Amino acid sequence: MSAATLTTEIPTLCLDLATRARTASRGMAAVLRAAKDRWILASAKALESRASEILEANAKDVAAAPGYGLNTAAIDRLTLTSARIQQMAEGLRQVASLPDPVGEVREGSVRPNGLQVLKVGAPLGVVFFIYESRPNVTVDAAALCVKSGNAVILRGGKEAIHSNTAIHRILADEVATAGLPVDAVQLVPMTDREAVGHLLKLGHLIDLAIPRGGESLIRRVAREATMPVLKHFDGICHVYVDAAADLEMAERIVVNAKTQRPGVCNAAECLLVHEDVADRFLPQVGAALAAKRVEIRGCSRTRNLIPTTKSASEADYRTEFLDLILAVKVVPSLEAAIDHINTHGSKHTDAIVTASLSAAQRFTLTVDAAAVMVNASTRFNDGFELGLGAEIGISTDKFHARGPCGLRELTTYKWVVTGEGHIRG
Amino acid sequence: MSAATLTTEIPTLCLDLATRARTASRGMAAVLRAAKDRWILASAKALESRASEILEANAKDVAAAPGYGLNTAAIDRLTLTSARIQQMAEGLRQVASLPDPVGEVREGSVRPNGLQVLKVGAPLGVVFFIYESRPNVTVDAAALCVKSGNAVILRGGKEAIHSNTAIHRILADEVATAGLPVDAVQLVPMTDREAVGHLLKLGHLIDLAIPRGGESLIRRVAREATMPVLKHFDGICHVYVDAAADLEMAERIVVNAKTQRPGVCNAAECLLVHEDVADRFLPQVGAALAAKRVEIRGCSRTRNLIPTTKSASEADYRTEFLDLILAVKVVPSLEAAIDHINTHGSKHTDAIVTASLSAAQRFTLTVDAAAVMVNASTRFNDGFELGLGAEIGISTDKFHARGPCGLRELTTYKWVVTGEGHIRG
Repeated sequence: MSAATLTTEIPTLCLDLATRARTASRGMAAVLRAAKDRWILASAKALESRASEILEANAKDVAAAPGYGLNTAAIDRLTLTSARIQQMAEGLRQVASLPDPVGEVREGSVRPNGLQVLKVGAPLGVVFFIYESRPNVTVDAAALCVKSGNAVILRGGKEAIHSNTAIHRILADEVATAGLPVDAVQLVPMTDREAVGHLLKLGHLIDLAIPRGGESLIRRVAREATMPVLKHFDGICHVYVDAAADLEMAERIVVNAKTQRPGVCNAAECLLVHEDVADRFLPQVGAALAAKRVEIRGCSRTRNLIPTTKSASEADYRTEFLDLILAVKVVPSLEAAIDHINTHGSKHTDAIVTASLSAAQRFTLTVDAAAVMVNASTRFNDGFELGLGAEIGISTDKFHARGPCGLRELTTYKWVVTGEGHIRG
Repeated sequence: MSAATLTTEIPTLCLDLATRARTASRGMAAVLRAAKDRWILASAKALESRASEILEANAKDVAAAPGYGLNTAAIDRLTLTSARIQQMAEGLRQVASLPDPVGEVREGSVRPNGLQVLKVGAPLGVVFFIYESRPNVTVDAAALCVKSGNAVILRGGKEAIHSNTAIHRILADEVATAGLPVDAVQLVPMTDREAVGHLLKLGHLIDLAIPRGGESLIRRVAREATMPVLKHFDGICHVYVDAAADLEMAERIVVNAKTQRPGVCNAAECLLVHEDVADRFLPQVGAALAAKRVEIRGCSRTRNLIPTTKSASEADYRTEFLDLILAVKVVPSLEAAIDHINTHGSKHTDAIVTASLSAAQRFTLTVDAAAVMVNASTRFNDGFELGLGAEIGISTDKFHARGPCGLRELTTYKWVVTGEGHIRG
């Protein structure tokens, strides 16, 4: 639609989309779990039975991808196959199996005057989800938003518009059949960049914006949004090897945190080593990391102990490499490690390896991060690994939700107060 | 300091304040409840023993008040007495008795792989609290922020600067004695309006801004802030009297919700009556409200049943009167009442009076408000009444906290994950 859309029409189309979503969200608040799961499971089946429609549309996107300047890795993420469609359907079935966060009683008490007070999970309302090239996100985001009782406005990247349109058509066809409000799941049909800007102005109709993609997308959304934004910025994650660490365990954790999947936000970017164990640990971990082709950028003591080490700049200690590069520093104490993390880190995920209970307690109490790991890889900061079932993102904010965001983090709550004619004196 | 402060110095002073607060917040995260309560209780005692300092300073503010254009009611709110200082001290003792939200384990489980996962209450960090003329807020806000493990920057109105400075001096004198970080409780010494603007730009040092005062203050803070803002906007609260209501109970609740304290946010502003009971209920409640000198602005059916009724405009159904004025409307159904509330209300507090369980359930499920009352006055939406112990405000947002905000709402959480060398495969 992009080329055909007149610029003057875009604000009207955006307002219409958001108004429909607001209306749908009112109905969504009362939809039973049975209906929501019926839609999710029917959609899973329809994705499988109508896979050829998706593959055909996806082929158009893949063909156009070089024209958008996508590199091989990006084209691979964009490309769908029968197996990937099957994974999307399986993902839906998992969401159907998760408990409904709406109506969940989170607290409850009877006050001294007999008033019954319940704090009950409730939908946020309308979620605006903005993402980049992977079309499977269309399915994930729609399912998580609907299961949490919200209406959703999906806005994918222009590179995936044919795939997203085909997937959305299948999801939307099942919406009415399952008895959900007809506009519960909408896709922004315009690929114009300014459509996002217009939607971000509609804070009275949209309750939350979730950008998923590169830092520039997140910064743009945070800057322009008139509604709250669930932000997912850098993961500058640390592993601190304490004086009391089991050094074999520390090596396994450092290698895993750095190399198991270096391009993700919960991969380690910096290793801090207590000076009491540096002489023994650094040569050992240096060899293990070298075997995995990790480049080390270290302080002078690190360079003495691992000869291949490059000199680390101050900037290296504040960088999310997302690559096989690790900044390393020898620290004189636990306190120095904590200070370094709180000063240089990004409050995402930081780990300590130690056998000392008091060191573990000090670290977990005073490191200011969404997740603090003791004797475990930073890679475990993930919605599935922490038991949330599925995640729509990892929040680096402290407000509302911190760390992995699953179904419950897509809801708010309301106080339900029941009396027998209670009045205030 | 206002007159003496050079405009060029203000950004530097603000940056210094916020940097000190950030440093203090790091220390605050590890302060035990015992030390926090020690400070709160010592402060209560010091407020009492040093009351004359406060009264002397307050007299200067009261003397200057007419020059700031304050009316009699505002001067009354500004004026401190021995009894009011005593109340401030009692308020502190109540906060000391409340549980510590920091370290509170909110969820916990062991994952199938043996990882122990805890979701633990943690301070937000630095709270910037901006308020208007009542100096007792200085004490409340400081105690709630410190008890929740945060460092606080207090910014009162210029009309109360002498009182706030005297109170802050007393609180700050006790900070070091109790073993808290020295800059845990700071007062912005500059009364220049632009100081607020500079502090609101420091989103990297301040985690939350809380404006408490009129709508223009809140809108200004929300517009300029680079950090999250806990907002407290209008309360356009409804009472809906259902076809199945006990009409005596309904009368008591309507009169209480409207007249017990008409100037507050949880007072009712609109009455909706099911048409099946309008003929009986409206004359009855009309007489009761007339006895309390409430002006009624109603629809045509209301005007037929309560002859003194003025005609309600569309705007009357969207107005927070904060006065003895009530908008009234006869509605054909429960659904029409819910639609009216979701369209005209402010998502603050709405009540239903009914003996019907299904009507109560439909209402509580689909009315989108922070608090939904069944057979109880809207006036019960209050931190103390709902069991939160104390409140720093009532949030009209859905994100993070909704409704009354107490100690827990001044915190975030962190995930603490403990393994035995766990790595991801």
